[in-house]
Amino acid sequence: MRNTKIRAVQFGCGKMARLICRYLKDHDVEIVGAIDTNPQLVGQDLGEFADLGCQTGVIISDDAEAVFEQCDADIAIITVFSYMPEMFDFYETALRHGVNVISTCEEAIYPWTTSPLETNRLDKLAKANHVTITGSGMQDIYWINMPCLAMAGMNKIKKVSGKVSYNVEDYGPALAEAHGAGYDLDRFNQEIAAAESLPSYMWNAAEAICAKMGWTISRIQQKNVPFILDEDVYSQTLGRTIPAGQAIGMSAVTEIKTQQGIELEVECIGKVYRKEDGDMCDWFISGQPDLEFSVSKPDTVALTCATIVNRIPSVISDPAGFITAEKLPLLSYPSFPLHTYL
Amino acid sequence: MRNTKIRAVQFGCGKMARLICRYLKDHDVEIVGAIDTNPQLVGQDLGEFADLGCQTGVIISDDAEAVFEQCDADIAIITVFSYMPEMFDFYETALRHGVNVISTCEEAIYPWTTSPLETNRLDKLAKANHVTITGSGMQDIYWINMPCLAMAGMNKIKKVSGKVSYNVEDYGPALAEAHGAGYDLDRFNQEIAAAESLPSYMWNAAEAICAKMGWTISRIQQKNVPFILDEDVYSQTLGRTIPAGQAIGMSAVTEIKTQQGIELEVECIGKVYRKEDGDMCDWFISGQPDLEFSVSKPDTVALTCATIVNRIPSVISDPAGFITAEKLPLLSYPSFPLHTYL
Repeated sequence: MRNTKIRAVQFGCGKMARLICRYLKDHDVEIVGAIDTNPQLVGQDLGEFADLGCQTGVIISDDAEAVFEQCDADIAIITVFSYMPEMFDFYETALRHGVNVISTCEEAIYPWTTSPLETNRLDKLAKANHVTITGSGMQDIYWINMPCLAMAGMNKIKKVSGKVSYNVEDYGPALAEAHGAGYDLDRFNQEIAAAESLPSYMWNAAEAICAKMGWTISRIQQKNVPFILDEDVYSQTLGRTIPAGQAIGMSAVTEIKTQQGIELEVECIGKVYRKEDGDMCDWFISGQPDLEFSVSKPDTVALTCATIVNRIPSVISDPAGFITAEKLPLLSYPSFPLHTYL
Repeated sequence: MRNTKIRAVQFGCGKMARLICRYLKDHDVEIVGAIDTNPQLVGQDLGEFADLGCQTGVIISDDAEAVFEQCDADIAIITVFSYMPEMFDFYETALRHGVNVISTCEEAIYPWTTSPLETNRLDKLAKANHVTITGSGMQDIYWINMPCLAMAGMNKIKKVSGKVSYNVEDYGPALAEAHGAGYDLDRFNQEIAAAESLPSYMWNAAEAICAKMGWTISRIQQKNVPFILDEDVYSQTLGRTIPAGQAIGMSAVTEIKTQQGIELEVECIGKVYRKEDGDMCDWFISGQPDLEFSVSKPDTVALTCATIVNRIPSVISDPAGFITAEKLPLLSYPSFPLHTYL
């Protein structure tokens, strides 16, 4: 048991970072650096930014190199973008300074096949610097390790079906449009369905499930289908009502065939929510016996931030390299200060 | 990786054993002995008893000593009763012969405080014989390890509420009456609520949750309340209709206070099911954020039997002693023959 607090650098100061910083404080982690390039934030005290109730003396800086040079951090919490290529430089900077990395980047949950070049370079760099890099968040427990644990009570598995959703209203108009919100069917089919699309967040999670279960993927494919209601829905982000019959977002369905004969079909829904909608996390596994479970309207943002923070001790103490979440020891709730788990 | 099959003795040949034997066969485990004292079963071939589609040459015997003396088993699967004192002798016999034990006995899931004398004697005996004894079944994953994993994504926990149910129709008139099925309220209050009651199956599971989470129990208490509907329900087991307003079973509510300030309230419902009823496994954890999840109408019998079988490699390879389920490595689904996990 270590008796000095864990020291963290918060890399990326957005909505998630605010909550993460509060949770870090709750679990006795010291924040020793903060990085963001947003001119509105640079120069601000982290305590003010994250509403910690005090000035911390840690000033948000746009000079990542300087931040890592001026502290001996145990871990960098990197919360900027969703895909590996755009995250590579941030990860590289932290690893090069010998600092472990945990990241909310959705692709980082299992990027071995969707971004193999970046992932392997980072794996090698992490090993050379004796540190660990891991992606985590909502997917770690609720999209990967919890379905795998639930399946451990079955005698035979035929097919794994998972369905999750998020509200595109939470992430601004660009993401809403990228999901086809407010598009009619023709436009959706031309601009969204026909486009070469990025792997959905569930694509990477489903690959992690296969890796953990020992299933060999023989085929994986994704299609984007519009999400349509027979009622009008008002979108605050778009500033207008989406009429019945137009897309309020999309569902990315990823289908996997494995050499073991087990199939996976995972669906990732991003849409404009109505009042009664909430995030979804539903699993149905057919086999012997069938098994169905769901997390009811999960608070995806809070669960992601708490999972990131609770994961820190296992990332610090894990073997060096890019260690994806399905390979980490299963997470447990920290009943005591986080550094006492080291 | 071991290249010889695991050898198992099935101790207790009832409803659960039938399914367990089929699952053992599915996972390449050799059944080398079978024990039961029921004169209807003694002398029967195990293949016939369990509908394995072939004669196995393994004959159900009422002489446990002889069975253990005449084979070199890796594990005994002991499925007889629900409470430790009535199970002690069976466990003792297997352990004394140097055979690991896994058991469906509900109390065995965490018997340290409800049957401390029996549990400690068995722990010592298991260590002296370099073998492991473990309780498992539905509770292992769905009542203990899965709620603990779900909580690992939370920042703060205030209260853990769990509710599970089973159909008393499945277990005969004695159990139905013990649950007060068909009793009016006066009789229920006199004979069931006022009686010194055994710990409910969820009592032991909740203690395991506290042990895994590092929470120190300061008070634990249970009350049995009748389960009443405003409609008539027919009970096949009782051979009559239970009128609206009479108990169709009972709910045992166990409340735990911990020194960490976290509370648990777990409810174990045994009642006569209507057509639309199914087993329940619902969890609500209040905290930051709140978290709610449920397994929808779980097939408790099949999940119990598959969990028992899938647990075998970890019981064989675990340290000697009475190792309760919350201390075992988390279970994973065996995609390959069971002995390859050793």
